[in-house]
Amino acid sequence: MTYTAPLKDMLFVIEELADVASISALPGFEDASLDIAQAVLDEAAKFNSEILAPLNAEGDKNPSEWHDGEVTTTPGFKEAFRQYGEGGWQGVVHLAEFGGQGLPKLIATPCIEMLNAANLSFALCPLLTDGAIEALLTAGSDELKQRYLPKLISGEWTGTMNLTEPQAGSDLALVRSRAQAQGDGTYKVFGTKIFITYGEHDMAENIVHLVLARTPDAPEGVKGISLFLVPKFLVNDDGSLGARNDVHCVSIEHKLGIKASPTAVLQYGDHGGALGYLIGEENRGVEYMFIMMNAARFAVGVQGIAVSDRAYQQAAAYAKDRVQSRPVDGSAKQSVAIIQHPDVRRMLATMRALTEGARALAYVAAAHSDIAHHAADADARARHAAIYEYLVPVVKGWSTEMSIDVTSLGVQVHGGMGFIEETGAAQHYRDARILTIYEGTTAIQANDLIGRKTIRDGGAAARAILAQIDETLVALERHDGAAFGAMHRRLMAGRAALANTVEFMLHNAKSDTKAVFAGGVAYLKLAGIVLSGWQMARALIAAHTKRADDPAFYETKIATAHFFADHLLPQAVALEASIVSAKGDQGVLALDEDQF
Amino acid sequence: MTYTAPLKDMLFVIEELADVASISALPGFEDASLDIAQAVLDEAAKFNSEILAPLNAEGDKNPSEWHDGEVTTTPGFKEAFRQYGEGGWQGVVHLAEFGGQGLPKLIATPCIEMLNAANLSFALCPLLTDGAIEALLTAGSDELKQRYLPKLISGEWTGTMNLTEPQAGSDLALVRSRAQAQGDGTYKVFGTKIFITYGEHDMAENIVHLVLARTPDAPEGVKGISLFLVPKFLVNDDGSLGARNDVHCVSIEHKLGIKASPTAVLQYGDHGGALGYLIGEENRGVEYMFIMMNAARFAVGVQGIAVSDRAYQQAAAYAKDRVQSRPVDGSAKQSVAIIQHPDVRRMLATMRALTEGARALAYVAAAHSDIAHHAADADARARHAAIYEYLVPVVKGWSTEMSIDVTSLGVQVHGGMGFIEETGAAQHYRDARILTIYEGTTAIQANDLIGRKTIRDGGAAARAILAQIDETLVALERHDGAAFGAMHRRLMAGRAALANTVEFMLHNAKSDTKAVFAGGVAYLKLAGIVLSGWQMARALIAAHTKRADDPAFYETKIATAHFFADHLLPQAVALEASIVSAKGDQGVLALDEDQF
Repeated sequence: MTYTAPLKDMLFVIEELADVASISALPGFEDASLDIAQAVLDEAAKFNSEILAPLNAEGDKNPSEWHDGEVTTTPGFKEAFRQYGEGGWQGVVHLAEFGGQGLPKLIATPCIEMLNAANLSFALCPLLTDGAIEALLTAGSDELKQRYLPKLISGEWTGTMNLTEPQAGSDLALVRSRAQAQGDGTYKVFGTKIFITYGEHDMAENIVHLVLARTPDAPEGVKGISLFLVPKFLVNDDGSLGARNDVHCVSIEHKLGIKASPTAVLQYGDHGGALGYLIGEENRGVEYMFIMMNAARFAVGVQGIAVSDRAYQQAAAYAKDRVQSRPVDGSAKQSVAIIQHPDVRRMLATMRALTEGARALAYVAAAHSDIAHHAADADARARHAAIYEYLVPVVKGWSTEMSIDVTSLGVQVHGGMGFIEETGAAQHYRDARILTIYEGTTAIQANDLIGRKTIRDGGAAARAILAQIDETLVALERHDGAAFGAMHRRLMAGRAALANTVEFMLHNAKSDTKAVFAGGVAYLKLAGIVLSGWQMARALIAAHTKRADDPAFYETKIATAHFFADHLLPQAVALEASIVSAKGDQGVLALDEDQF
Repeated sequence: MTYTAPLKDMLFVIEELADVASISALPGFEDASLDIAQAVLDEAAKFNSEILAPLNAEGDKNPSEWHDGEVTTTPGFKEAFRQYGEGGWQGVVHLAEFGGQGLPKLIATPCIEMLNAANLSFALCPLLTDGAIEALLTAGSDELKQRYLPKLISGEWTGTMNLTEPQAGSDLALVRSRAQAQGDGTYKVFGTKIFITYGEHDMAENIVHLVLARTPDAPEGVKGISLFLVPKFLVNDDGSLGARNDVHCVSIEHKLGIKASPTAVLQYGDHGGALGYLIGEENRGVEYMFIMMNAARFAVGVQGIAVSDRAYQQAAAYAKDRVQSRPVDGSAKQSVAIIQHPDVRRMLATMRALTEGARALAYVAAAHSDIAHHAADADARARHAAIYEYLVPVVKGWSTEMSIDVTSLGVQVHGGMGFIEETGAAQHYRDARILTIYEGTTAIQANDLIGRKTIRDGGAAARAILAQIDETLVALERHDGAAFGAMHRRLMAGRAALANTVEFMLHNAKSDTKAVFAGGVAYLKLAGIVLSGWQMARALIAAHTKRADDPAFYETKIATAHFFADHLLPQAVALEASIVSAKGDQGVLALDEDQF
């Protein structure tokens, strides 16, 4: 149950597919060369595999425990988090101005992948802290930034996102928590928040809660919600910690997975009101929250890739070790390692290809984000921002949906041993199951992909991506051989399925809204499989070109791309069929509520 | 978390698709009319939903516990098992000669479905007992039958299957347990068996272990394994219990799911040898075990259907109750029950359609089994036996694979609440995960489907089924309307995909064996989706014909079939593509062991 960071695979994507050279050509990223990336990744690999990976099973066996308002985390977590902060890992992407390293998202993303592969439950604490940092950077006053950012970026304090209430999950319009201005610029916050990841714990001196609440005269719905910073301990002007604030953890949840990550119910203001500070302007809280949400959604997508890779590594190791049954073709008289059996090979190849495809797509998306933020040219910034925005729900939705399948295959490869908890395969399966739910379910991602990312710009971002796929198709035609032939044929079919679906969405959004949204998750999966497949096609070309440099490595890349083309890309056409069939209130919507 | 048996749906399948009238026309089944089926199902529904369903969550919270060789089951299980026996439920299908009711498998199957939907962990005890009964009936001596069958059939004693050893999972050739003849017709059995379901428990006075072991001079491999009956307590000539036998439970497993079902490690012969009785002839143990295995495999398929239905019922109830977000088409200004949202509707429709399709296929298979055993005409028996044999790995493999997806959707419908254990949705997801593993993994089912069920008879059984699908296609053509049009188009494409795959298997089995087996699971899934879809097509025709009798019920059937055609059947074509692509050591087999 060790974890070995796939550094070579990561660097291949960074160099060949996400084009790190173009990122280090951007103003402010001059130092972000491939060598720097390699050095950072090497260090990250060391920390994550040595310190955090061994604590993963431990966290599952000895989860966080609540007692009398306090949460004790898994033994070892507190010390590991101290090392995480001291190593500067919380600050990898954040501004140097506040103590961060200011590295590109392209380099931070593999670090986040390793962190999550090593220990998904642990990684949630930094992930949420990143979100709080983003929101403060975007909308916080200078005073709030100066007071809170350095300690968050150094990993001394941690952050949380407080959206959900018992009656308000995906539907923020139903938020009821309230904030009362005190006349001195501060507020008193009251209400109950649930599902708050690391809402209480013992790993840091202070916890900075970002909380959605309504002021007394706010309009109804999502346009009347403001964002407040509510620290667990008040912070004095000299930066030292003051009084305990009136926010208390009344319980933590008993969950299917990510058990070491405490999921808190937080009670605000039961003893007079929790002191809070408005972030940005009143009634714009949901807008700010979406900024941190977008960053968090991308990171959750990376979690899907991470847990998939961890599950794959464990399954591959078991399959090489476990001896059982003779080969089906009679090529040996003795029982062989199960990796010799075609179906085990298929399962491992599926796990590997899905993980690599999703990884490539996420890193490429990260590079678009870097260009969107750093390009000198405003047009380039806008163009890359639009593509990144389109890809965020795909990375989130697709990488997490596929992680359920991949971790399930991980259990299956182990046979009966996979069902025994001590084996560890089941933990990945349980842990992965939250990923399609939190930070917006797959359906919410699909709604975002349709509404804000496809229809709002009239399909412009989608068509820009399709045009890039066409370039890859042209490049594929220049090569011969089975892998290129298969990839060209399947990617062309997949590209057509995606293009048809985009047009279907655009043409029917107003006239047949429900049918369009009924096809949303299928559209998201179709985009996920085709865009991952496209990255595998680019990997195929790059690997073919470099083959002679390192035949063993590049031939594996070629075979994996070939497998993706033959075995995974064909799903695109089935998905398109189910989307287009949804038209006219048939299929999904033909059954009324009372028919269920 | 209640369970309501879907009696109307079950009776629809029994009457319209599995043609109970033809079963009650068989010699020995004269009483097995639709009325009798209804009466039996009504009673089963009552017992299972009232007594067993409430114990399901309890079993997950308070699993079986091992202490000093003894296993204490979940509070309530022992009493429920007594009532199960007294109600005659263990004997539904078994011979009246030994105290059973002698009902057709077609009527027993919905009883088994209800039992498993109510309480999967509990149901495993009767399921394994059924297997032991089958094996004894097939190969046991009259003395063994007289001594053990009545108590097993009455539910006073229970049975187990002892195949697996630490080094011998799917690969029975590796079995090392040994049996030494004592010269008096009895044997002393020695060895360690693992993964023994209900291998030790407190629900019955005695446990009858059926154990695979080798005699000293037996040939190597699977042809040197014999089957022994080893009772926990020896049975005196008058039927009373004698001495405790030398078989002891040394531990039980800590599992992902089905926690109430004790999975035992059994140690045979550590104190001089466990007294055992040979069943049938020496060295034919694996053959006999396959008889009980075949019955058990069908039953595990039914478990998949059962847990899917339970998960569906829970998700549908939650979706009608949980209010969240406004409709996507702006048709209401207030938040609505989430069942109004298109993607929730899609998830519920998927769960429902998959479950109904798999149920119909399993019940139809059960009817084939009844005809295979009871038809007066030997040709008819052989014909139906071949079809039943073909369907067993499909029912087992497909119903269980789809149950993982269905129970996962059940979690997803619940959103964040689905991840909280108290909700109960996660239990179904965890419980279902064993189903694709035990009694032969999906790959083992696929190997059976290819080798023994498709290639051995030169595709005859497969083609007989394809010919029946053609009849359904002709019948579909006689009707107009969107549902019939969609079903005809998709079923025709699915039928072609299945036919092509069968031909691919037949033509390449010898020349490209590994490629054929690499496509095995895809073939099994393809068969599952097409044959389920075929049953949905038959349901569509039957429902259309009867529509006026009960519009609400039959229109739901029509809409569900329509959904299956548009949203699920298209997968067949993608599966075919991945199978045929496996040819020539490409794809799956292109990656060598050391490339993983």
